Amino acid sequence: MAEQVATNITFHEGTVSAEERVENMGQKGATFWFTGLSGSGKSTIAVAVEQVLLSRGNHAYRLDGDNIRMGLNKNLGFSPEDRTENIRRIGEVSKLFADAGVLSIASFISPYSEDRNAVRALHAENNVPYFECYIDCSLEAAEERDPKGLYKKARAGEIKGFTGIDAPYEAPANAELHLKTHEDDLETCVAKVIEFIDAQNLFA
Amino acid sequence: MAEQVATNITFHEGTVSAEERVENMGQKGATFWFTGLSGSGKSTIAVAVEQVLLSRGNHAYRLDGDNIRMGLNKNLGFSPEDRTENIRRIGEVSKLFADAGVLSIASFISPYSEDRNAVRALHAENNVPYFECYIDCSLEAAEERDPKGLYKKARAGEIKGFTGIDAPYEAPANAELHLKTHEDDLETCVAKVIEFIDAQNLFA
Repeated sequence: MAEQVATNITFHEGTVSAEERVENMGQKGATFWFTGLSGSGKSTIAVAVEQVLLSRGNHAYRLDGDNIRMGLNKNLGFSPEDRTENIRRIGEVSKLFADAGVLSIASFISPYSEDRNAVRALHAENNVPYFECYIDCSLEAAEERDPKGLYKKARAGEIKGFTGIDAPYEAPANAELHLKTHEDDLETCVAKVIEFIDAQNLFA
Repeated sequence: MAEQVATNITFHEGTVSAEERVENMGQKGATFWFTGLSGSGKSTIAVAVEQVLLSRGNHAYRLDGDNIRMGLNKNLGFSPEDRTENIRRIGEVSKLFADAGVLSIASFISPYSEDRNAVRALHAENNVPYFECYIDCSLEAAEERDPKGLYKKARAGEIKGFTGIDAPYEAPANAELHLKTHEDDLETCVAKVIEFIDAQNLFA
């Protein structure tokens, strides 16, 4: 005989509906895909945007090199095939977060239009909102900032296939949001992202 | 000159802290890893547990074959190497969800102790709570249920390497929770999982 359990539980047939998810999270999930050169400010803006969203009681999570490259994608290198698989996996994970009702902020150079378009198509197929955010920065400005000293190493030939130096960056042609970090300061950029998010009717 | 933006925003240096995340989500994230034979009831229990959690206002998300095998892991087969990589990737994704403050319910046969232990170790390294839930079911009961007709095909030799038939299932030796679905009915199993979750001090 089954033992008595105290917890009062109710559940229905089938999985959690999209409406139940929205009610539970107080928002509809979505992917905000930040693409741009190394040093463009993607991660700095993403970190600040995440903070602003959480401080308002929204639910957001950042995917970036720090939690992906050493984890899920640690078995990938920087060949064209591996770069494509890198972005494919991140796109799949971001779609899962958005499906879970989270505002997923994916911050990756993602230099190839074809790879980004595949992520966009994946979201469309699954009816998950997707917004490409082009974190535009002139190569000159990014190279002058060079926060990790990577441009210097790329110029010296110590890093091969570096985006903007000896590998291409294919700028988005149809980004939903276009920031210019060599013109606007951080606070302005963050405010523009928040305004953009607020315009998408994601909050219940 | 930067244009005026209306949104009132504040953010601080550094990333969102663990404490801020807990306050934002009303809970601490964790992974509940459901392992067991095909037909053991893993997914049925996981679906119901997710519903119960959401109906209480907790935040949970299910990872299972439906949203992983056709997505993130669609480029993996069923060789031993691919099975290991399958579980590795799911473990990484579940860790990310838990890090985001979500109660992540990962429901996969995951027949090899070594693969499951690697997921456990990954969570430990990242200080993310991890609970192995052994959804135990006798092979006889699972095969009699055979909800997808897979055991029948495996017995007929139409599927090779099927767990429990011609591939091993290594039962957990140290699972934090052990359900026996050939003894308890669904409601009892779900209640036991909820009681177990409630005992982990995850809710703020």
